[in-house]
Amino acid sequence: MTSIAVDPHSEWQLSTGSTSRVGVTDTTFRDAHQSLLATRMTTAQMLPVASRMNRIGFHSMEVWGGATFDACIRFLGEDPWERLKVLRREMPDTRLQMLVRGQNLLGYRHYPDDIVERFIRRSVANGIDIIRTFDALNDVRNMRKTIETGKECGAHVQGTLVYTVSPVHDVDHYMAVARDLVAMGIDSLCIKDMAGLLKPDAAGRLVRALRPVVGTLLPIQMHAHSLSGMASMAYWEAIQMGANAVDTAISPLALGSSQPATETMVVVLRDTPFDTGLDIDALVDVAESIERIFRDAGNAPIRQTIIDTRVLSHQVPGGMITNLLAQLDQQRASHRLQEVLRELPRVRADFGYPPLVTPTSQIVGTQAVLNVLMGERYKIIPAEARDYLLGRYGRPPHPIAEHLFERVAEGRQPITHRPADDLEPGWEPALAESAPWATSEEDVLTYAMFPQVATNYFKARARKLCGERRPFPVALRQVNEMVRGFAEA
Amino acid sequence: MTSIAVDPHSEWQLSTGSTSRVGVTDTTFRDAHQSLLATRMTTAQMLPVASRMNRIGFHSMEVWGGATFDACIRFLGEDPWERLKVLRREMPDTRLQMLVRGQNLLGYRHYPDDIVERFIRRSVANGIDIIRTFDALNDVRNMRKTIETGKECGAHVQGTLVYTVSPVHDVDHYMAVARDLVAMGIDSLCIKDMAGLLKPDAAGRLVRALRPVVGTLLPIQMHAHSLSGMASMAYWEAIQMGANAVDTAISPLALGSSQPATETMVVVLRDTPFDTGLDIDALVDVAESIERIFRDAGNAPIRQTIIDTRVLSHQVPGGMITNLLAQLDQQRASHRLQEVLRELPRVRADFGYPPLVTPTSQIVGTQAVLNVLMGERYKIIPAEARDYLLGRYGRPPHPIAEHLFERVAEGRQPITHRPADDLEPGWEPALAESAPWATSEEDVLTYAMFPQVATNYFKARARKLCGERRPFPVALRQVNEMVRGFAEA
Ligand SMILES: [Co+2]
Ligand SMILES: [Co+2]
Repeated sequence: MTSIAVDPHSEWQLSTGSTSRVGVTDTTFRDAHQSLLATRMTTAQMLPVASRMNRIGFHSMEVWGGATFDACIRFLGEDPWERLKVLRREMPDTRLQMLVRGQNLLGYRHYPDDIVERFIRRSVANGIDIIRTFDALNDVRNMRKTIETGKECGAHVQGTLVYTVSPVHDVDHYMAVARDLVAMGIDSLCIKDMAGLLKPDAAGRLVRALRPVVGTLLPIQMHAHSLSGMASMAYWEAIQMGANAVDTAISPLALGSSQPATETMVVVLRDTPFDTGLDIDALVDVAESIERIFRDAGNAPIRQTIIDTRVLSHQVPGGMITNLLAQLDQQRASHRLQEVLRELPRVRADFGYPPLVTPTSQIVGTQAVLNVLMGERYKIIPAEARDYLLGRYGRPPHPIAEHLFERVAEGRQPITHRPADDLEPGWEPALAESAPWATSEEDVLTYAMFPQVATNYFKARARKLCGERRPFPVALRQVNEMVRGFAEA
Repeated sequence: MTSIAVDPHSEWQLSTGSTSRVGVTDTTFRDAHQSLLATRMTTAQMLPVASRMNRIGFHSMEVWGGATFDACIRFLGEDPWERLKVLRREMPDTRLQMLVRGQNLLGYRHYPDDIVERFIRRSVANGIDIIRTFDALNDVRNMRKTIETGKECGAHVQGTLVYTVSPVHDVDHYMAVARDLVAMGIDSLCIKDMAGLLKPDAAGRLVRALRPVVGTLLPIQMHAHSLSGMASMAYWEAIQMGANAVDTAISPLALGSSQPATETMVVVLRDTPFDTGLDIDALVDVAESIERIFRDAGNAPIRQTIIDTRVLSHQVPGGMITNLLAQLDQQRASHRLQEVLRELPRVRADFGYPPLVTPTSQIVGTQAVLNVLMGERYKIIPAEARDYLLGRYGRPPHPIAEHLFERVAEGRQPITHRPADDLEPGWEPALAESAPWATSEEDVLTYAMFPQVATNYFKARARKLCGERRPFPVALRQVNEMVRGFAEA
């Protein structure tokens, strides 16, 4: 299957760039269940509504990437490539989008260029129309390979600005990153607020400032999580200021740590200059089916907390605090959480204000825990933090604190080139190592990203154990937060 | 206790009218638990946080009225007047607000003027600073007595526009009602969206249109319910267009059928020209206490549905649909709900497009059910509907359909005067009838509003059974929706 079902460019321009109609990207099959259901929605749960979703007329649907790939092989015993093929078949009229973490692809470390290139090519060949790529540090060099390859295969490539709040993340910072992304040839720009920090006035200002940078024809799309309760207001204000598309989820999987509800935004924009043109009754029909699917499966989203006040007071998402608490608990030191929450922004400042998203959230969080528990700051600095401080994850938004850099550098200079330039090609080794199990180029790529988990999956597949769904874990909420800790929200 | 603790006028003007600072009215102790917990929050559950709430610096707190009075004597075995006195004592620095249904006070029918006057006087004497009054039909004559009396006792009186969507509810309609309310001497104006129908663009237009009507010094306040997911966006847009205050609830009792979260709006408006000036950490502290109180009591709010898609598709809130279904069920006709939902807007049109709020939602809903079940429209017209059609609830927003009016009029003319003008004074009879139990003017007023329920309550109080809390009902959700059906949301 190599044909792209939907022209990833022309209709997008028609639907957003040249009129004020706002495009809707539905995230139900990717980010929504990743955020509310520990990424446990199965392909079987998607199929009963897929063809109806296809007919809604969304600008696009995000259905692949993020943590869904890992979850498929790790927890669901599903082949993620098969899911993509099935969804492509069921949804021939809708642009399918994937989220990719730049040079990290769908994993948690940088991969060599040959793996990145092959992975992007196979993703498009199997049905992806739109590639949304981001880097945790907004280091455009980490997005370059995904952008180039996406363009080469004729996909629509969306560059991403990861939004955070810090003294160095001013409008100028985002304008500079956007300028670089545009120069690399992106087809549209996404503002990604994974932590629910984007206030409506800031959203409006950002869109207004970015418009001259990206030009009038290049669409700007908003991606936000509702955990602080601000996302829908940020969408509204961004749209007034010229944003062309928003990410939403069908209501049973909306709000809280997921996106604003699709139905709400469709009704809100109806009869305004920004009308989405979507049919609310068709959406309600799909929503009721999805609600029934989860009810029947006994895995309805857990909604104890809709507003995460910890984001509002500390700018730290509850999922990250849960991880810190788990680390403290192992040392019987959970009573020291408040100290860690005070140390966290200090570490983040020393580290040059990285946005807190995988993997920087784990690196900064662990360092803050160690600084508190050791009774002396930076007495222990883990290997990942050392790599980060030496530039091996990319360029921090702001220079590293001098005292800290000297401590880890031991006379060495930080690397200033693109980190992946140091990586040996990965295809041949992956091909050799996965030979006992792999039956396709896709299998080899699965192995290249997740050697250990892929091997377990391949063995289980060989034992024909896969098709069966594992029992749903009882402590879903905990798993959910753990997974969110490791995987981009 | 006759002194008003907080000047109900001067500080309000200072905090909203003359600057752009936005006032926050917290509804946690009234509308929030009425909407999410079937009005079952007890005074004992309020006390642990009341003094901290008092120190937050809210523009006001709505703590009394609506369905809370009825719920106190019907379900909680509490004296609502005692609650008011206790809250007044615990919150000496915060303006306390009550919601009153115009001439209906806190009940479901019009009361005579002498009862209305005494009730308002005793409310203010016991600690109410702000009286928010509304009428289901926006018939200002039904609000007049509450406004006049409130003004006479020195309270701040807030007139209300009940928001709905219909061919006759255009901006001109609301401007005309607002003009009449201003002429009656209201101190501020509330836009009340009890059904989650107010879209942000409509909210902005409405505030802009009303400003010249009310003048620059008279504050405009927004009251909306989040059940369609639009309320926070409506608040944001209304504030941009000049609204001076918004109603919110502490996050554990926010969203869904309740108000947007207080913490969210405080953070959203911080560092904008509309800063609320409230301290987010103090709010988070209160939120955690409230969450603990409900968790310990085992009565956490139920959040199965956060977005009510039925409002979005049919403009009919889920609670009302539940009531219709219950009526159909009794006739073993629940399969005919769709017919009823199609008949409902036709009946509403025939009835002159009343907003659907107590008591009009019940009158219109029952008529739609009867029209479907009888197989002939208006074969049966219940007494309440006849009274409504003859003008005995006030003036409908639009003339009644002629064919329908002729059917009930039987040659009579509709009444065109204020319905309460026909009522005999109620104080002397209530005094006599309640004599065996009543120990205060407040008791007599309780009896005057709810003779049967009050008698049961008085008897229980006499048997000293009251202080005990009743066990919390199991089918909370059903009770919740039933109560919402009867009581204003
Ligand atoms: Co996301
Ligand atoms: Co209300």
